[in-house]
Amino acid sequence: MSKQQIGVVGMAVMGRNIALNIESRGYTVALYNRTEAKTSEVIAQNPGKQLKATYSIEEFVGSLESPRKVLLMVQAGAGTDSTIENLLPHLDKGDILIDGGNTFFKDTMRRSEYLARKGINFIGTGVSGGEEGALLGPAIMPGGQKEAYKLVAPILEKIAAKAEDGKPCVTYTGPDGAGHFVKMVHNGIEYGDMQLIAEAYDILHRGLGLSPKKIGQIFEKWNQGELDSFLMEISAQILQTEDPDTGKPMVHVIMDKAGNKGTGKWTSQSALDLGEPLSLITESVFARFISSQKEQRIKASKIIPSVESQISFDEKSKDEFIQTLGKALYFSKIMSYAQGFAQMSAASEEYNWQLPYGEIASIFRAGCIIRAKFLQKITDAYSKNPNLQNLMLDDYFLSIVSENHEAVRKVVSTAISIGIPVPTFASAITYYDSYRSEVLPANLIQGQRDFFGAHTYNRVDKPGTFHFHWNEGKEELLDK
Amino acid sequence: MSKQQIGVVGMAVMGRNIALNIESRGYTVALYNRTEAKTSEVIAQNPGKQLKATYSIEEFVGSLESPRKVLLMVQAGAGTDSTIENLLPHLDKGDILIDGGNTFFKDTMRRSEYLARKGINFIGTGVSGGEEGALLGPAIMPGGQKEAYKLVAPILEKIAAKAEDGKPCVTYTGPDGAGHFVKMVHNGIEYGDMQLIAEAYDILHRGLGLSPKKIGQIFEKWNQGELDSFLMEISAQILQTEDPDTGKPMVHVIMDKAGNKGTGKWTSQSALDLGEPLSLITESVFARFISSQKEQRIKASKIIPSVESQISFDEKSKDEFIQTLGKALYFSKIMSYAQGFAQMSAASEEYNWQLPYGEIASIFRAGCIIRAKFLQKITDAYSKNPNLQNLMLDDYFLSIVSENHEAVRKVVSTAISIGIPVPTFASAITYYDSYRSEVLPANLIQGQRDFFGAHTYNRVDKPGTFHFHWNEGKEELLDK
Repeated sequence: MSKQQIGVVGMAVMGRNIALNIESRGYTVALYNRTEAKTSEVIAQNPGKQLKATYSIEEFVGSLESPRKVLLMVQAGAGTDSTIENLLPHLDKGDILIDGGNTFFKDTMRRSEYLARKGINFIGTGVSGGEEGALLGPAIMPGGQKEAYKLVAPILEKIAAKAEDGKPCVTYTGPDGAGHFVKMVHNGIEYGDMQLIAEAYDILHRGLGLSPKKIGQIFEKWNQGELDSFLMEISAQILQTEDPDTGKPMVHVIMDKAGNKGTGKWTSQSALDLGEPLSLITESVFARFISSQKEQRIKASKIIPSVESQISFDEKSKDEFIQTLGKALYFSKIMSYAQGFAQMSAASEEYNWQLPYGEIASIFRAGCIIRAKFLQKITDAYSKNPNLQNLMLDDYFLSIVSENHEAVRKVVSTAISIGIPVPTFASAITYYDSYRSEVLPANLIQGQRDFFGAHTYNRVDKPGTFHFHWNEGKEELLDK
Repeated sequence: MSKQQIGVVGMAVMGRNIALNIESRGYTVALYNRTEAKTSEVIAQNPGKQLKATYSIEEFVGSLESPRKVLLMVQAGAGTDSTIENLLPHLDKGDILIDGGNTFFKDTMRRSEYLARKGINFIGTGVSGGEEGALLGPAIMPGGQKEAYKLVAPILEKIAAKAEDGKPCVTYTGPDGAGHFVKMVHNGIEYGDMQLIAEAYDILHRGLGLSPKKIGQIFEKWNQGELDSFLMEISAQILQTEDPDTGKPMVHVIMDKAGNKGTGKWTSQSALDLGEPLSLITESVFARFISSQKEQRIKASKIIPSVESQISFDEKSKDEFIQTLGKALYFSKIMSYAQGFAQMSAASEEYNWQLPYGEIASIFRAGCIIRAKFLQKITDAYSKNPNLQNLMLDDYFLSIVSENHEAVRKVVSTAISIGIPVPTFASAITYYDSYRSEVLPANLIQGQRDFFGAHTYNRVDKPGTFHFHWNEGKEELLDK
């Protein structure tokens, strides 16, 4: 009996679809699922495919070519650990486990070390694109042993989405947790993009009094230019969709409580650990939290005073403001990506990964949720300067933010004056203004910390660590 | 030989000062430190005191009255664990360990459970007030077994700071990690208060062109009214202090890179875990991070375009704006405390603590870094309604924010238009506007999530979980 080229564990929708994707590229695939019924169902629904159902771990492992390539598509967390433990006794040195789940990168680092001690290769890979992406071509962000990656690269390159230039959206990101880290930041950026679009919608809807349909048309137009992205495209479609039941715009019948699956939270928590200011994405996570406090908000809306939330513009001013809003959105998106890529850079240093920033932006161009035309500009920026510290310091992005910072100032001031909450637009401009400030008022904070806690300070004019005896007016040099 | 009433482990400055504080209230105190020299030094520097030096764990434990009361003032983290392990073999059931270090609350939860299994009581307590507070009267936030707390309460009440009404600034906060959690949120609030004051200073300095000395005078005046607080008081003093060396204002020679010891970060990470929007404090943590990127900021300041950062006001408008800024500061401070207390409320539910919010505000009134007159208002609010969901929903705070929200809109719009970064002021108003919005644009976000990931949504007009087939225009009811 001939062996299968790769095996997939976990026949929930993502595992099933990625198995079908692999098979469609000419590979033979062994399938395994903890409950037999799901495996049988996949086989029954997909007759004539090179899929081999297996009903025990032994049978599954035994059916694979050596070195074995096993893709885990199971519930992240304890499910991944128990699957690994079940597989381990049957694997041989040099076999390759690939975790394609939504795994926290530190778990991947832990498992990578654990498995390396047993001679098993481990690749932790982000897979983005949802169910459809898994089936037709996701963006894939693998990390792990480079030699092991080379053995699975041909398969991953075939199943990945292809960018406009035909390049597959997969690249080796680095050792151990690098791939899952990149996927986590991808998801954080996704939160930021979604919240920015939502705030733009809110300004147009509550502020300018435009209908969802009209706003959908504006987004459609924006999607033709710099703001071209998958999220802009689907937002335009959603806003123009009517509820078949009531005839109302769908957004008016959908409950405004945003859920989350925790990856945005991870991104913010990691940024806090790394000492990186990830304000925009974090505000977008908090915005989801506030949205879920619907009952409190209803109560508050009845007693907390507001301001007149609508602006009366003539047609010409309205059109100009809409253009300004588009510029502000592009500006803010750049701030968000600047923060996200700076976080990757801090992680790369902390965990010794040497992340390929330009390649990462490049594989985001298709397949994944944040796919967008402007990602090419990020790739270009890192091609010019692989050690770029911040996107704003690249010529292209510098020219865009230089042109557009006045727009975001206008939009945020306007929104705040009419009571529309713009947490991410506001964090975009406060980040910009902080980053370009040679002197920040943190000198006062250092003074406070030294005053109440003797936490010491440095000086701008000479080296050394100092403590000031504030009540005696005397400075003490502690060390040089 | 008579036994000592309490023992203190750790003779660094905090442990030493708190031991002296306890002794000064009439208690006999045994001292122990890992290195003998420090213990000898304390004894030598404080002759004639009821302090007993001990030079081994056995001697230390043997010198204490039963049930033993041992206060640990050691380096938080591994130091606490190893000290506990060293003590354990010598302790008896019913003895009480008190961790007064700057411990992460989840470590306290873990240790509490571990020690309870061995019959040892464990109290994790926040101690705020710095070195001077430890000596003269800190604010103390203990959590642990209530019965054990009662045995140490008389000592803690004597050494604690006293509020204006004579009440000691110590209260039982709840089981296991409650005390260290409250201390963590206290520190987060401290970060927020400090950043708000720093932003106000920046607006007055860069925006209005006022000298540090003049700003110090304004702060001194603010400190007479609603904004009366320790941090405002010391900021006024710092700003009016000249460098004896150069004659320049101290803030102009202090390097504007703010350090941090991680407790602000913990507060934000915990809020993210609890699903609570803690935007203001988190922005203040990120502001410290950006401040520490000084070298990048210098580079950026030379190439990234700015706007005219100074406003030309006539004297009358200038005075009015300064008054507006004071109102905005009070408004923003209230938002920060509203978020911090909401986080406590979420934690209380999550960990089953039943935190006494009013009492907690009450013990913040003296001794600690965030001590301020207005905390009495928080105590009053929770006395009126122990289940208050948000400070804004209390009559007093509602009236303040109603009066002052226009002020913060003016300040944020102005700051953003002149390029002064105001991350915390901006998050205050965006939080306010989000919280009082009956409908937020999270409906669009739920639409996006359903579109790309089939994450489902609820409706505003009927119960159930739905998925929309966006390309077919059909809604599917998944469950009721």
